[in-house]
Parts: sequence; C-alpha cells; structure tokens
Amino acid sequence: MIDHPAFTVEPWCLRETELLTEVLAQTESVFALSNGHIGVRANLDEGEPHSLPGTYLDSVYELRPLPYAEAGFGYPESGQTVINVTNGKLIRLLVDDEPFDVTYGDLEAHERVLDFRAGTLERTVRWTSPAGRTVLVRSTRLVSFTHRSILAIAYEVEAVDHAVRLVVQSELVTNEQLPEQAADPRVAAVLDSPLVSQEHMALDGRVALLHKTRQSELLVSASMDHRVEAPQGAGVEMTSESAPDFGRVTVTASLQPGERLRIVKYVGYGWSSERSIPALRDQVRAGLADAVRTGWDGLVEGQRSYLDEFWAAADVELDGDPELQQAVRFGLFHVLQAGARAERRPIAAKGLTGPGYDGHSFWDTETFVLPVLTYTAPWAARDALHWRHSTLPLARERARQLDLEGAAFPWRTINGAECSGYWPAGTAAFHVNADIADAVVRYAAATGDDAFVREVGLELLVETARLWRSLGHHDIQGQFRIDGVTGPDEYSAVADNNIYTNLMAQQNLRAAAETARAHPDTARALGVHAEEMATWRDAADRVVLPFDRTMGVHQQSEGFTRHQVWDFAGTTAEQYPLLLHFPYYDLYRKQVVKQADLVLAMYLRGDAFTLEQKVANFDYYERLTVRDSSLSACTQSVLAAEVGHLALAYDYVAEASLMDLADLEHNTRDGLHLASLAGAWIALVAGFGGMRDHGGQLSFAPRLPDGITRLAFKLRRREGCLHVETDSHTATYRLSADDPAASLTITHFGESVALKVEVAQRLPVPRIASRPRPQQPAGRAPFHRRGTMLS
Amino acid sequence: MIDHPAFTVEPWCLRETELLTEVLAQTESVFALSNGHIGVRANLDEGEPHSLPGTYLDSVYELRPLPYAEAGFGYPESGQTVINVTNGKLIRLLVDDEPFDVTYGDLEAHERVLDFRAGTLERTVRWTSPAGRTVLVRSTRLVSFTHRSILAIAYEVEAVDHAVRLVVQSELVTNEQLPEQAADPRVAAVLDSPLVSQEHMALDGRVALLHKTRQSELLVSASMDHRVEAPQGAGVEMTSESAPDFGRVTVTASLQPGERLRIVKYVGYGWSSERSIPALRDQVRAGLADAVRTGWDGLVEGQRSYLDEFWAAADVELDGDPELQQAVRFGLFHVLQAGARAERRPIAAKGLTGPGYDGHSFWDTETFVLPVLTYTAPWAARDALHWRHSTLPLARERARQLDLEGAAFPWRTINGAECSGYWPAGTAAFHVNADIADAVVRYAAATGDDAFVREVGLELLVETARLWRSLGHHDIQGQFRIDGVTGPDEYSAVADNNIYTNLMAQQNLRAAAETARAHPDTARALGVHAEEMATWRDAADRVVLPFDRTMGVHQQSEGFTRHQVWDFAGTTAEQYPLLLHFPYYDLYRKQVVKQADLVLAMYLRGDAFTLEQKVANFDYYERLTVRDSSLSACTQSVLAAEVGHLALAYDYVAEASLMDLADLEHNTRDGLHLASLAGAWIALVAGFGGMRDHGGQLSFAPRLPDGITRLAFKLRRREGCLHVETDSHTATYRLSADDPAASLTITHFGESVALKVEVAQRLPVPRIASRPRPQQPAGRAPFHRRGTMLS
Repeated sequence: MIDHPAFTVEPWCLRETELLTEVLAQTESVFALSNGHIGVRANLDEGEPHSLPGTYLDSVYELRPLPYAEAGFGYPESGQTVINVTNGKLIRLLVDDEPFDVTYGDLEAHERVLDFRAGTLERTVRWTSPAGRTVLVRSTRLVSFTHRSILAIAYEVEAVDHAVRLVVQSELVTNEQLPEQAADPRVAAVLDSPLVSQEHMALDGRVALLHKTRQSELLVSASMDHRVEAPQGAGVEMTSESAPDFGRVTVTASLQPGERLRIVKYVGYGWSSERSIPALRDQVRAGLADAVRTGWDGLVEGQRSYLDEFWAAADVELDGDPELQQAVRFGLFHVLQAGARAERRPIAAKGLTGPGYDGHSFWDTETFVLPVLTYTAPWAARDALHWRHSTLPLARERARQLDLEGAAFPWRTINGAECSGYWPAGTAAFHVNADIADAVVRYAAATGDDAFVREVGLELLVETARLWRSLGHHDIQGQFRIDGVTGPDEYSAVADNNIYTNLMAQQNLRAAAETARAHPDTARALGVHAEEMATWRDAADRVVLPFDRTMGVHQQSEGFTRHQVWDFAGTTAEQYPLLLHFPYYDLYRKQVVKQADLVLAMYLRGDAFTLEQKVANFDYYERLTVRDSSLSACTQSVLAAEVGHLALAYDYVAEASLMDLADLEHNTRDGLHLASLAGAWIALVAGFGGMRDHGGQLSFAPRLPDGITRLAFKLRRREGCLHVETDSHTATYRLSADDPAASLTITHFGESVALKVEVAQRLPVPRIASRPRPQQPAGRAPFHRRGTMLS
Repeated sequence: MIDHPAFTVEPWCLRETELLTEVLAQTESVFALSNGHIGVRANLDEGEPHSLPGTYLDSVYELRPLPYAEAGFGYPESGQTVINVTNGKLIRLLVDDEPFDVTYGDLEAHERVLDFRAGTLERTVRWTSPAGRTVLVRSTRLVSFTHRSILAIAYEVEAVDHAVRLVVQSELVTNEQLPEQAADPRVAAVLDSPLVSQEHMALDGRVALLHKTRQSELLVSASMDHRVEAPQGAGVEMTSESAPDFGRVTVTASLQPGERLRIVKYVGYGWSSERSIPALRDQVRAGLADAVRTGWDGLVEGQRSYLDEFWAAADVELDGDPELQQAVRFGLFHVLQAGARAERRPIAAKGLTGPGYDGHSFWDTETFVLPVLTYTAPWAARDALHWRHSTLPLARERARQLDLEGAAFPWRTINGAECSGYWPAGTAAFHVNADIADAVVRYAAATGDDAFVREVGLELLVETARLWRSLGHHDIQGQFRIDGVTGPDEYSAVADNNIYTNLMAQQNLRAAAETARAHPDTARALGVHAEEMATWRDAADRVVLPFDRTMGVHQQSEGFTRHQVWDFAGTTAEQYPLLLHFPYYDLYRKQVVKQADLVLAMYLRGDAFTLEQKVANFDYYERLTVRDSSLSACTQSVLAAEVGHLALAYDYVAEASLMDLADLEHNTRDGLHLASLAGAWIALVAGFGGMRDHGGQLSFAPRLPDGITRLAFKLRRREGCLHVETDSHTATYRLSADDPAASLTITHFGESVALKVEVAQRLPVPRIASRPRPQQPAGRAPFHRRGTMLS
C-alpha cells in the first residue's frame, strides 16, 4: 500500500484535515481549481505560507531565448513559458491588530475539501491569534464552468468568543515574487516580472489591472468586484485603491461573538493577443458584471449542474477499493477541469495546475487526455483538436524547415511553435503527428461529428499523412521505412523503424486515405487526389515492423534487442530517474525503457499483433521498463490485463491513479500529471474493461483482478451513452439515448453484440489462464496493491 | 584549375605581390608564423587594415559557460576558448606628420614572402604619403624555432626622394577590440577583454605587461626590447611608456633621401597556470635577454638551420605540377610550425593561426597531423602524445562520469576537459580514443622509442583499451558490438557498429594486449593482468563489421545502406555545407556522408579489407560523400589511388593541398586547416606513394597519375631516413643512416625488400587496370586537375 495520510478516503471528494507543511506544495496542485481557461493553485487565501503561488490563463506565456552551446540548423531560438498572472485569490485578514497567519497563533482546526460534484474548494479554519482572539474562517472557492472568465470566493469570518475588529484586504497582485526553481530541466524557467502595467483603476469595491507581457505582447486583464454581508452594527466600511501591479479593496468591521462577516469576491480574467486595451477592458468588465448578477448562489448552482451532467455520462464505479474509487474520480475531475472550457486553446501536460514543463502541451494530450474526454466530455476533445488545427500554419512552416511535406506539429508548445531545445527527444519524436491523427480518428468515430471532419479532421489527417509519406521511404525490397526517429520511450532516440511510430503512421496514412475517400469534395479542396491517396495506402501496407527471430519478440526499433541490457542490478534506487544520473548516450545505446513504447503500440494498435506476440513482447519489455515517466504505468496496466497478469495490472492502475495523490514522482508541486490521471481511467476501462476502439468498432473483454468485485463505467457514443458493468463472472451492456431507435453494435470477447436502447445484455465472462508474473528491473516493481509478490 | 591569383607559384615560398583586400583575411592566416608555442597572424605591422588581429599562446584560453536550452546529465558546463593575447607585432610609423596606412596615400609596391626554408615573413612596401613623401618599408618577422618564447621583427624605413621626419611606435597592446564573429558554430566565440592587468613597466627600450585571464586564472606576460640602427645625424631619440593594457616605445629620427632607420624588435612571451608573478616576469625577461644577446642575425641563422635539418628528412618533391609542389611544402611548413615547439601542449585544429573552432584540438591531430610529424619531426609527435598523457586524470574522470572504465578523451579541448556542447557529435565520437592509440602505435613503430612506450605509450593504450572493453558488449551470438557511437562522418551519429570505430577499437585492444605483453613490468604497474589482456584480444577478434549482402558493400554503420539516399539532385550549390542548411535529424537518417568514414577505415585499417571490397565500397560511398569537411579529400585521394582511380586521386590531392591557398571552404580567415595540409602529404605519400604502415611494417605501392612525372619523399625511421622516389615505371628505395649497419625491410607491391644503408634498390612498378571513374553526388565532384571528366 502506498502511504498518503494527508487525505481521507471518500468517494466524492478529497479532504485534508490537517495543514501539513511537508505536503503544502503537493496540496497546492491537487486542490487546484480550473475550468481550462483559468487555473488557480490552492494557495491559502491569505497568500502565505506558500510553496508556489500560481494563477494561470490558458495560452498566456512569455517568450524566452533558447540558448545552445553549439547552434544547429532548425533549432528553435525562442521558447514559450507559462507565466503566473495577476493573483486574484488573495484575501488577507487582520484580527484586532494581528494578521491571520496559520504559522502564528494557534491553528485549532483546519480542513479543506475539494468536492468533485460541487466543483468547489472549501476551507474551514479555527484560529486563535497570539492575543487570544478566536475566529472561524470559512472560504469557498470556485473557478466557474458556466462563467468562463470567473473565479469567485465566498469568504466568511466568524467571531467565536470575543468581540473582534476585523480588516479584510481583498487583493490583486501582479508579478508576485516566485521561488527559484531547481536545475531539473523539467521544471519551468523562472521569468521575473513578465507583466508590464498598462492601466489600473479602483472604484468602490471594484479594481481593475491591465498588463502586457514584455516579449510576447499579450494583454492580460484582471478585475475584481465584491459583495459584503455583515450584521447590523458591524460598522462596515469599504475602501479601494490601485497601483500598477497592485489592487486592494479593504473592508473593516467589528463583530460580536457569534457574528459573521461575509464577503463574496468575484474576479474576472481576460487576455488577448489581438484586441485593443479598451476592448479587453470592456470584455472583462462585462464578464464580471454577469457574474455579479448571477450571484454566488447562481454560480454554485451552475457549477453543480454542469458537473451533474458530466458525471451522469462519465462516472466510473469500483467496488472493493475505496481509495482507487476516490482516485479515479479525482483524476476524471481534474481532466475535466483541464479541458472543459479550454475552447480551442491547448490542454497542457499539467493543465493549469502548475508551471511544470513550462506549461507546454505534448503528445500526452492527444494520447492520454483526449481519449478520456472523447468518451466523457467530447466537446472538450473537439476543441482541443480545433486548437491543433489552428496551429497548422506553424506546423506547415516547421515541416518546410525540416525538409518535409505536410505539417510537423511541435513536440512541446503553447502557441503552436516548437519549443523543444533538444531535438533527439523533441523534433525527432515525430509520432506526435500520428498521435494527433489518432485522436481525430477516435473522436470522429465516437461522435459521428461530420462537421468536425470536414472543417478540421480531414485536414489534420491529410497534412500528417503527407508528413509521413515524405518522412518515410521505400527501400529496394519495397519496405516502407521510417528511419532516425524517436518513439515514446525517451531512453532510446533517433532509431530506425520504431514500431510504435510505424504502426501509428500506418493508421494515420490509412485514415487519411479512407476519410478523403469518404469526403471527396473536402479532399479535393485540400489538393488530395487519387494518386496521392494510393501512395498513402501503399506506404501503410508496407511499413517495417522489426522482429527478432532469435528472441521471438518484436524490436522496439531496429536493432534494439541486440543492444546491451542495462545493468539494473548495479543501479541504485537513488539513481532513478536515470536521465538525471546517466548521460543520454549511455541510455540510448542500451536496452532500457523509460516508458511503454512497443507496449503502447500493442494497446493503441492491438489489431496489429497476435495474442502470442503480445504475451511474449510484454514479458520481454516488462523486464526492461523502469517507468521513469508518469506516462507508463497506465499502459502497462492495460496490456498486463490483456495478457492475463491481472494482479500486476491492478498494481499499475494504482500507480497511475495515485501518481499525484501519493506524489509518487515527487514533483506534484509543479502541477498534476494529467496524462497519468487520465491514464487511471484508461487503465480501468481499457485494462479491466478490456475496451478497444480499433477502426471505430468498440470491443470489450472485461476481467477483474482479485480485490475489485465490480466495475461500472460509461462511454458517450454519438447521441447516446453506453453503460458497462462487470463483476468477475458477467458483463452487462446497456445503451441509453434520447432517440429510442438508436442502436450500437459492440463485441464482447470477440462476439458481436447488437444493443438497443435500454435493453441490457448480460453476458458471461470467460476465465483467463493465469500466467507467471513477469519480472520488472531490479527495484522497479510496482507497489503491490493486493496479495503477494507471486499473485 | 582552381583560381587563386593572389599568390605566385614558386617552389620554396609563398609570395603575394599585391595587397588585395578581398583576400586580406585569408593572407593573415596563410602567412601566419608560429613555432607551436607562439602564433601570430600576418596582420600588417601597423595593425590596420586588418580582418582579424591575432596573437596566440598554446594553451592560453579563457573559460566560458556552455548554455543549454535543455540540460542533460554529463553535459560540460564550461568551455575553453583560445584568446587573443597581447599583440607584440605592432609597429606604427609616422612619415612627417602623416600615419603610414596603405589605405591612404599611394601604395606603389607591396610584396610579402613566406620563406619555407628561412622561416621568415618578409614584407616590402613602397608608399607615398598624401603629402608626397615616399618611403620604402621592409620588415622581416620570425617566430623563433630555436628561441621558443621569442617573436622578432626587423623593421627598416628608407627615405626615397625627400628628407623625412619619422616617428616609429613599437607597441604591445592587450585586449584588442575584435570584430564580431558570424553565427557559424565553427567560429570561435568572442570574449571581450579577457585579460586583467597585473603589472606593467617601461624602461629605456623595454616594456613589460603582465596579465591574468579572468576565469581560467592564467598569467600571461609579454615583454619587448629594441635595438636601433640609424645614420649619423638622424638625431635618434627613444622614449618608452606603459599602461595596464598598453606599452609603447617611440623612436624619432630624421632621414635624408637614401638613408635608413632600422629597428629590431624582440618580443618575449610566457604564461603559466602555476608560477608566481615574479617567476613568470623573470622567465620572460630571461628569454628576451637571451634573444637580444643572440641578435637578429643569430636568430635568422638558427631559424634556417632548424629548417634545413627538417627539410633534409621531410621534403616531398613533385615534378610536373609546380603549384602542388609549392602547396605540399606550404603544408609541411605549417604542420611543422604547429608542432615544432608545442612541447607537451596540444596542437589545435587550426594550429596557432586563428581562433577557429575555439582553438580546440580534435582527433584531427592524432589522425592527420601526427602521422606526418611522426615521419618528419618525430619529437613533435612524441610531445603531442605526452600532452594527451598529461590529461589522463581528466579523461579518467570523464570516463567515470560516462559510466565507463579507462579513459574517455574529450572530443574537443584545450586543457583536456571536454568542451563539446553537442554530445551526438562530441561525446559519442568515442573513436578519438582509438585515434590516440593509433598515433601511439605508429610513433612507437616508427621510432622504436622504448622510453616513450614505458612512460606514456602503454598507459595510453591500456586506458583506451579499457574504455573500449566497457563501451562494447558481446551479444548472445558472441559478437562484440559497439552501439550508439558516432564515427568520423558527422552526417550520421549515434549509430551501432560504425566500422571505422570498430576496426580502430580492434587495433587499440590488440595493441594494448601486445604492448602489455612486451612490457610486463610496466603493465603490471598499470594493473594489467593476463585475464584482462585476454578479454581485450577476445573482444578484438569478435568486433562486428556490418556488411550488406544485397548491395555487396560494407555498411558504414549497421543499417546505413537501407537508409534513404539524400536527394542530391534537389540540393543546390548554395545549400552546402549541408549542416548549415538542413537539420541534423534529416542528415542523420539518410545516406549522405560528410567526410570519409568507412573510406578512412579502408586506409588506416586497410589490412581488414580485400581489394575487391575496397573497390566496391569506394565506389558506393563515393556517390554519397559531399566533402563538407576539410578532412575528407586527402583520404579519398589515398583510396582512389589504391583502387586505381589515379586521376580522381590527383583531383583530391589538389583539393587537400589547396584548401587554404585557394580558400576552398571560405573560412581560412579563421585559421588554417592543419589536418588538410597534413592530408596533402598523406595523399601524396600514402596515395601516390602507396605507403601503408600496418603493424609497424612499411609497405609501398607507388603509382603516379598522368601529369606527375616524378615523386620523391622521405620518411624518418628509427635512426635513419628512408628515401623513396618513383616515376611512372620504377620506384627507388634508399636507406640513409649514421649507423652503416642499419637496415630496414619494406614491401614493394607485396614483395619484401631488404634495404641496407645507401644501397638503393630500383624496382619496377606494375601497371594498374584503370576502372570507370566513380560518381560523386551532383555538383560535388572535385575540380579536375588534369584531363577530362572521364580521365
């Protein structure tokens, strides 16, 4: 069992009952609120103590130069880094004449609750000042799903046993001082004071600040308004003031014991790269006015009904493991938060929960996050692909620079331009293009959204297919090779015929040809003709899949299985993650796998392998995979379940789900591992549920490990919703839809099952032969969730 | 014919008869003087106009941070850059009241002569000032081979037709302002004012400046003294002054027409990382006193006798191509200048002729420069290997950091620490270690220097053998593989089983075992035991040499011949060198060769290939080799000659020889291409002379192309000298030695020939079948030296 005493185990919320400084940084991330447009870390209302203050707006970044000891053609010269925008969360409190600070006086009670159905973060604190004045502080914070530009906080102070004078300072602070980050390349670069004041104003309870980023020239506006409730005789007074990087509304009052002062703070955010200052000023003011009119209760209600609708078609139920039950909902909640209102802007690897990875989006989004959104909140998946589409001009330009056709999407980016400063693990990881195509294919099949295909989907497929066709070549035997690229496993790089890349490219090429055939007019407008489609099909049919006949396994890439096996026995626990303790040259030339690569191919392109191959490959690569990436456990879980290692699959589900709740990689402070949180859903649905979606055909092979007695999940499918429920012996499938004539054909353990609306089908689950548990590298076995080492 | 009208064709000197601004930068490099310890670019005495002022001391560098957009374990954090030290060449002249500047007034005559036998640079100028005063200025400059710390200049001004007042200002200038360099990564980083004054003094005609570098903390001292000769009545006066970055001796005189003022300037240099300021001050003062005592004539005589001795055992004579005759001597002269007095300090890729490549040494030194020095100035080769040996502690430390045994020598360095900021073309190019071993083996065989082997040679062999043994591994078939390394061809990188690397490592491993066997005591002291030697022999016997059976050729590295062939037809002339116009990922994954790699293996390890393999491989790789490196043509020449493409070999000899005289790569301004200049010798001796030195056995197979009627060269061998002379029909071998009992056995076209002292053996040269000329990539054929395209 993984130990994380910071939180209680509850099905629908995450609760801490004590303020532990050792997990303060982690809690700032796990309790973070976001709607995909605005993200706020769970810093305390009064600002301090803190680990890392953070308020983010999707796509608000600053540019910074990327330096190189030795320059090279095509290296990006400038990178984008997410910035901490104006902090609107701050509410400071003075009790009599002493500042409310939990590190002074006595913190008699502390509780924070992130409610997955309410969409709020509630905090309750009972505190006695050094002078002996006790107050009860309750704050509830939300980032609205229904009002995209709004953060709101209900802040309430109650005098407990003495009359007290209170001063509440509600603030906006720009260019907060940030702690210096470690030298770890994965942590964001610090950018000092990135925002330059353009204007500021204060009037009654309202303050507005407007700034511009220095290099990227983005306008960023933050504005706040307040509503105050106090008992008669409290003598409430309110003043406001503003400065270039600073706005303050001060409320003073006196309370008798038992009386409460309540302030609702509405914060509106907006940014633009194109609009004028007056236009942006008005936009934010309008959003704020709308929120104030809706009122606190209206915002809370809107939040709950938005989430009710989400959970109705997204919830995963799990009997037998309450911790995992909580974790999977925690993950789904954060995945929704990251995508809900991103609206044609990127979904970053950390969402808007921290500055890790510079706030960049990677292939993680398409490969791990979008599958979950596709089946649970498809509009968010659609919008994320619209964002990719909007960056096509930059991707085409990059392809030209790289001497390629079509579009080359960036390895890491905010605005669509490549930000990778190390090409072997950046530019060479061309698979991101096929991952985008995969997300297009999946979304289109799941939703039947034909408008999307015509407007966005086909062009993404065509431009990525063109990339593959120009990146690969036929050898004289007629095989289609893709040489010198980097697959998902970042402990190998620039290798020939990475199977993951080749199979995903194959699917990309075929999907482009097939979708172009189905939409001839759109295809013609994109310049696609029959001959081009034929070259795609031909290349796809002939991709190389290297196989080692001696070992009887596929090669992750050509030659891989002849490399020296990493000296796992000679590697200590402190030497992980390996990339921080060994040079790349050493990692690249040996058999050591950072994260599922061939194993991911066996999931996403499971149709390209026999079960026997999957068994042999999984066993072989399991011995080499160190899981130095949070993207690995969920995929290993899926394949472990498929080939019959159910206990191992369970261990990996737990690792993926608890990545952030247990801070397994010790970097949750920099933000949540969204892909791993999404991966928990994937591990349950595709692993224990056995769900696959090859060629738009949903198939299932549910099987539960010992310890989980029931699993139920839902998948949005076109206009309806598929309900799947399984115990150890049977599986039940049910289709719900508004249209009573709707139907859906799935397969259950290879047999076709036609579903009609509200006609549940209950089918038996065959037994699976148990196999010997494969070995992981020394010291790298996952924690055992249940049973013994040999389970 | 390559066009270079700047210089006249003469056998023993390089002469320019006109000051052409368009070749000013180039002439600063080609006329540069050096003794391996001090190097001075051929800037005009009066300093301006200039392209790049340059005065260098071997191993005087400054440290600079190496930045990375994304950090990685084991990346060097700091690099070394050669700095421009105090300029002692400056002599300014005022004629009446107008400064002597060739860009003003009338330059009526200009000539500079670099004399390969005198070791001097002479300049003669006739100039008329804007006011109509004509003077004749003659300066002769030398950097002494016999006085290691001394630069001397004899400067003479003659009044021609009017009486003139003259002011001569002889200067020392520190921290000269340098022009900004281009963004080309191969050009040195500019370091502003790297020297901090420690003390300065002026007394009579003497001035001394002493500085320290900021980061590297090296003390650098420059000191000058003067001797003046003038006619009676010239009224000569001399004053001197000094400042922190500046020293000046001013001589004033009046001359009548036909009278001359002559000043000999002696400049002494010294530096140290360890000595105190007083010790260094005294050392430089002593060197200067010794030079003044020797006097100008003494220095000039010493210079000539040093060179007489060199040429007596080093000259190459060539009948039929005067330009090439000049070029090969030019090259030999500069190779000697780079190495003569380097004395256990590195020989840089550009010698001390310019700041290119940051003044770093690479594998070029061991692979191209040391072979020439081994046979012509063996003490210099020995000293250069002593330098490598002195850096063993750093190389061992680097190996530990890289998770390897033994020593890992740096890809580029001045002080022995790795300076490469791009590991795929730096750290991964492990072959540098085998190249050092190769130089050890060659030097030891050529000289029989047993003391060297015991003190230095064996330890270098052992530590590099240990590196190879830990870098490679046996696969389950028992083959010894060296995966993920970069060979000489920098358009491929991080590939498995590069044949060049594997064969050179094989030789390294065998030489270490064999030398350890021959020196058991020394070996024991190095911890070498029989079992370790056995693992070296075993690994060497089983190295993988990838061969493509379909194509019938060796693979430069595993998989190479299945890669896509570069689109040469679609590449324009302006897109070369490719690395400045295409990304590395694109180059690495295709069949395109920057420089001889497998072809170099076929030269240095020619014993590992059959003639048929050489013919097929040469033809195959010739079609792929673009020669974007100056290290390529000479090697291609050697193999072209061996497989029978004599006209092509001739073309490549010319390209290697004329690299700098014709400025073929347009970067001679940054310094000479020493390896290419050495390569001209290699191309003639190993190419047309057919000389090979495998296992210490000299063999010859001389063959001349049309156009060259006679080739004669000499090789120092132990105590003697082997004279080889050939025309189209016969070859004559003669051994000269002080010991009349000396003997030498060589082979001539495979037949053993025993030579006794002064008994010439004249042997017939068999005809060689001519073969169809192989194709080069479109637009990349060398200039044709003779005959037609089909010759």
